Amino acid sequence: MDVNLLAVNEKEKNLSYTLQSWVTECKPFAKDGRCATYIPALMDSNPFDLGVCLLDSTGIKLTAGEWEKYFTIQSISKVINFILVCSHLGISTVLDRVDVEPTGDAFNSIIHLELHKPKKPFNPMINPGAITVSSMIPGNSSSEKLELLIQFVEKLIGKRPTINQEVFESEWETAYRNRALAYYLKEIGYLYSDVEIALEVYLKQCAIEMNTVDLALIGLILSLDGFNPITQKQIFDKKIARVTKALMLTCGMYNGSGKFAAFIGMPAKSGVSGGIMATVPPKSLMSKTPLNQGCGIGIYGPAIDDIGNSLAGVMLLKKISQEWELSIFSC
Amino acid sequence: MDVNLLAVNEKEKNLSYTLQSWVTECKPFAKDGRCATYIPALMDSNPFDLGVCLLDSTGIKLTAGEWEKYFTIQSISKVINFILVCSHLGISTVLDRVDVEPTGDAFNSIIHLELHKPKKPFNPMINPGAITVSSMIPGNSSSEKLELLIQFVEKLIGKRPTINQEVFESEWETAYRNRALAYYLKEIGYLYSDVEIALEVYLKQCAIEMNTVDLALIGLILSLDGFNPITQKQIFDKKIARVTKALMLTCGMYNGSGKFAAFIGMPAKSGVSGGIMATVPPKSLMSKTPLNQGCGIGIYGPAIDDIGNSLAGVMLLKKISQEWELSIFSC
Amino acid sequence: MDVNLLAVNEKEKNLSYTLQSWVTECKPFAKDGRCATYIPALMDSNPFDLGVCLLDSTGIKLTAGEWEKYFTIQSISKVINFILVCSHLGISTVLDRVDVEPTGDAFNSIIHLELHKPKKPFNPMINPGAITVSSMIPGNSSSEKLELLIQFVEKLIGKRPTINQEVFESEWETAYRNRALAYYLKEIGYLYSDVEIALEVYLKQCAIEMNTVDLALIGLILSLDGFNPITQKQIFDKKIARVTKALMLTCGMYNGSGKFAAFIGMPAKSGVSGGIMATVPPKSLMSKTPLNQGCGIGIYGPAIDDIGNSLAGVMLLKKISQEWELSIFSC
Amino acid sequence: MDVNLLAVNEKEKNLSYTLQSWVTECKPFAKDGRCATYIPALMDSNPFDLGVCLLDSTGIKLTAGEWEKYFTIQSISKVINFILVCSHLGISTVLDRVDVEPTGDAFNSIIHLELHKPKKPFNPMINPGAITVSSMIPGNSSSEKLELLIQFVEKLIGKRPTINQEVFESEWETAYRNRALAYYLKEIGYLYSDVEIALEVYLKQCAIEMNTVDLALIGLILSLDGFNPITQKQIFDKKIARVTKALMLTCGMYNGSGKFAAFIGMPAKSGVSGGIMATVPPKSLMSKTPLNQGCGIGIYGPAIDDIGNSLAGVMLLKKISQEWELSIFSC
Repeated sequence: MDVNLLAVNEKEKNLSYTLQSWVTECKPFAKDGRCATYIPALMDSNPFDLGVCLLDSTGIKLTAGEWEKYFTIQSISKVINFILVCSHLGISTVLDRVDVEPTGDAFNSIIHLELHKPKKPFNPMINPGAITVSSMIPGNSSSEKLELLIQFVEKLIGKRPTINQEVFESEWETAYRNRALAYYLKEIGYLYSDVEIALEVYLKQCAIEMNTVDLALIGLILSLDGFNPITQKQIFDKKIARVTKALMLTCGMYNGSGKFAAFIGMPAKSGVSGGIMATVPPKSLMSKTPLNQGCGIGIYGPAIDDIGNSLAGVMLLKKISQEWELSIFSC
Repeated sequence: MDVNLLAVNEKEKNLSYTLQSWVTECKPFAKDGRCATYIPALMDSNPFDLGVCLLDSTGIKLTAGEWEKYFTIQSISKVINFILVCSHLGISTVLDRVDVEPTGDAFNSIIHLELHKPKKPFNPMINPGAITVSSMIPGNSSSEKLELLIQFVEKLIGKRPTINQEVFESEWETAYRNRALAYYLKEIGYLYSDVEIALEVYLKQCAIEMNTVDLALIGLILSLDGFNPITQKQIFDKKIARVTKALMLTCGMYNGSGKFAAFIGMPAKSGVSGGIMATVPPKSLMSKTPLNQGCGIGIYGPAIDDIGNSLAGVMLLKKISQEWELSIFSC
Repeated sequence: MDVNLLAVNEKEKNLSYTLQSWVTECKPFAKDGRCATYIPALMDSNPFDLGVCLLDSTGIKLTAGEWEKYFTIQSISKVINFILVCSHLGISTVLDRVDVEPTGDAFNSIIHLELHKPKKPFNPMINPGAITVSSMIPGNSSSEKLELLIQFVEKLIGKRPTINQEVFESEWETAYRNRALAYYLKEIGYLYSDVEIALEVYLKQCAIEMNTVDLALIGLILSLDGFNPITQKQIFDKKIARVTKALMLTCGMYNGSGKFAAFIGMPAKSGVSGGIMATVPPKSLMSKTPLNQGCGIGIYGPAIDDIGNSLAGVMLLKKISQEWELSIFSC
Repeated sequence: MDVNLLAVNEKEKNLSYTLQSWVTECKPFAKDGRCATYIPALMDSNPFDLGVCLLDSTGIKLTAGEWEKYFTIQSISKVINFILVCSHLGISTVLDRVDVEPTGDAFNSIIHLELHKPKKPFNPMINPGAITVSSMIPGNSSSEKLELLIQFVEKLIGKRPTINQEVFESEWETAYRNRALAYYLKEIGYLYSDVEIALEVYLKQCAIEMNTVDLALIGLILSLDGFNPITQKQIFDKKIARVTKALMLTCGMYNGSGKFAAFIGMPAKSGVSGGIMATVPPKSLMSKTPLNQGCGIGIYGPAIDDIGNSLAGVMLLKKISQEWELSIFSC
């Protein structure tokens, strides 16, 4: 082992200890949140789980807490299907069909669809836009569309993901509001498949299982503008990466996105299962950060707040961002 | 002149030529816009003016077009009074009184004030929140409040700015909607001075005159987290700088903020007089940008689009961001 | 024939002539309207048809134009299922589940459901409330519910009505917005059956066929507070009749209800097929009306305006109301 | 005294006893309400006052409780200035400037002004429309406009009313929301005088003092389509009377108008001081009412509910309407 590698390992070890102490510090915040109840299968999660994985482009891998646990990614899938559809149809076609403007409304609000002219869904990070995007995935059936998505996920995380059938079925039965949104989108001309096909694809993509390492890897690929440092391949276009990161920053944390941008400053996407996927572009030499070459972060903390974001997870990300100077707004 | 300085000068000259060519290229986009008509005094601007100044932290200064012309900064002043009030009262006190969430609505919409609970104004980059912030500037009279603001501007741009009395009076006479907003804010408990005092301060701050160099300097100070590289002084706290940049990115370009973040990716604030102030945090060594140590950009192009942003100005910023890789979302 | 009867017949004949002349006069107004296009099967109607039947409690029957043509009653069915459900469950149970407040929104708006607390549908004369009411009709299946409704209609009009299967199927295929509303109602707890059952009942009741005589008879029964002068039976409670008439007056003509009340002043309900059912309570002796003992009016004029009301039909009712002094607001 | 008159007196006496017993019965309902607090001067009213006066066109006058007390009429004045302005400018000019559609929103909501196209105020019974109407009263100053209104009130109630200066000043100081509405109306082009003039007229008309007899007399004149049975003069056009009664029925009781129409069924207008003015058109011979020749009712009960209507007053009107069969929807 050469000296330099030793130093790297020493740094990684120290950062890892620090991260573990923050996990311990942040776990108690979960007590003010609750596991999502509207998806029955999510109620059984342990609200005090808190796991994290951080991968940087130099090979550093930091983990702490329940980082290995698998969970359904829920709304984090919105990022993946947006990238997939942009890759197939081109950004401009996609943006003809879904806007990229933030809204101050809740993730499942239907109001903006009715009030605004044109009625185009506001952005692909909230349910109406995400269902529109799912309906655009190429394929003649839900299974064809899903297979394309699964294969794309495989390119990102290096393994074929599973779909949690129980969670899917549990959502499928009770997806009244998503059905309402989908039929409304069909009515106004912003659904590009049958309603039931779009919903099946959307709810199955939400039921894809990952752990924090998988999320961190996707975050790292976004950090590197679409380049997978493990397979050394450009997985998607850098322009798509930038639009996606902008969307995550402005709309990725539901109607808490503004405060998240102000105090944490990372493009991130959360899901109601308690997952968060965050991405940190490389920082300048002026930065005091110990991790200045770009990284991805995966979080799991199933107790969520009223808005739908992991309570302990957001606290942990805040700690990481502020202590390690990782906000994209810091110099 | 030593060799290194020569190289810098050579680089600056080349960048300057390029910038001038882009100004020429972007000017014609102004034909689809119009000078703001609701403020009578702005109607006399030349819609085909387009000026730009870029200052970077190494001392590079690039200018092109009508970069020396003075104009009233209008909504760009929202950034300045937000920083001022945060400096005096602390971020948390300010955010108790105005939220930092983006909204998809127009800059002068009153709807969110009525619909949302609590009725707190959504963010300080649109009129309701900005008027709330102006009412919080310390001082017992409009002149005391304004003097504090003027002195703060002086610390930023190194000279005492003038207020365009004609523009102020012209707005004061016709500010029906802003008066409606101010009285509504008073009603719901989010105005911290008399209505007329808050309005006078707000409309006078909008009538402060600057040129693109002044705006670029403010942008540069924001880029450096509150540090003024000319006076070598920390003008405001770095935490305030980050919150401000986050706000500019998520809400600074009215209801075009999402598209601006996606395709340009700079924290920026526009005004209806056609000014834009943008800030670019230092970039990593991985970046291909020729300007990786942080810069500020001032733009002037008075023909605005329906949303209220300078048409040619936005095109020019897009060119600068994409060609010089200045998006904060690029790696 | 005794003298008195002769006089009645003479009066009836004169009124009939007048009515026919008004039909001729009002027909041309149809040119500014269009047959509903969102239900494909309705597009084939003749936009210049205009028919009317007026029945009063003394036995007068006036008819003119295409009064015998059958058409689907569409939203007029909302009146019938409201009365039916109130008769079975009691007014107070029904009003716990659907409000009786007018709204200024279009018939198929979803906004009020999301904005207002509690989210109870605003009133049973617009789609959300009407679908809620259909879901409350007693019965374990759509056919049981429908059979109950059909039998109730039979009590009103004295014959078993047919359901236009082609119109039903045509609506069923394209009922995206109604499906959106129904799933939304299910989500917020205001649907009392399966979504598909409620929708099938709702769309089949809309496809019930009547002509203007049938509508006039229902109007007459409402005028007499639930008493059917032909069968000499009280069909439903007088309290239900009054609530229903109030609802028709405040909400029966979609977002044109206010103007209709002001200038015509009859409780009425329209449907997008161009039908209108109106009811006129008995008038005082002070009134100059020739028809002071209560009457019902059925109208058919398939060219509708933007709001969804028959253009020529509304003109004809205005003529009838103003010339014969039938507004409930006149003394 | 002839026999017939004796019978009338006997009837009046009996009705009077009954009415007094209902007042006693309804008084306790006031305990769930509160005197309006947003107008400081109204807080001193006795919440358990309940007074009523009923005048019919045959000369019957029934009174009970605190029927003689004077109070400011507040929103009831909206009826009077609407009639006045229609008389001067014609109904069609007025309705070009203010719609007559009910809305489900609160009396002081600003939302509909922003959402709807055209932005015309929804109806003259809620604040935005009423302020528009006040701005249309002929006259070059607030005192000229007010004088015209006062003279019109004199024609209605037979005496020059006083304006409660203390209540006016108390409202004037705190009228932030009404100022917001007025400036908003000015902005969108629906205010026809200076903002301050319109507000002064509006708030002074709200401060006009009457007692229940005055209100009952106005109600009686409306019942008789504009004819004053005391002076034997037609005070305003019968068409204006009908439009006004329709507006009262659909919008007169704020966002409780629908329930009021359903269960009470009288055109009525309430004010936050606890007054209600109701009007009952003459009833048919079929009616079982003891008062079938048209009447007006004035109520005073200062404890109001959340919507702004007198709690005990509404209960009393419900009793009167249901027991004496006075709903315009009953046959």
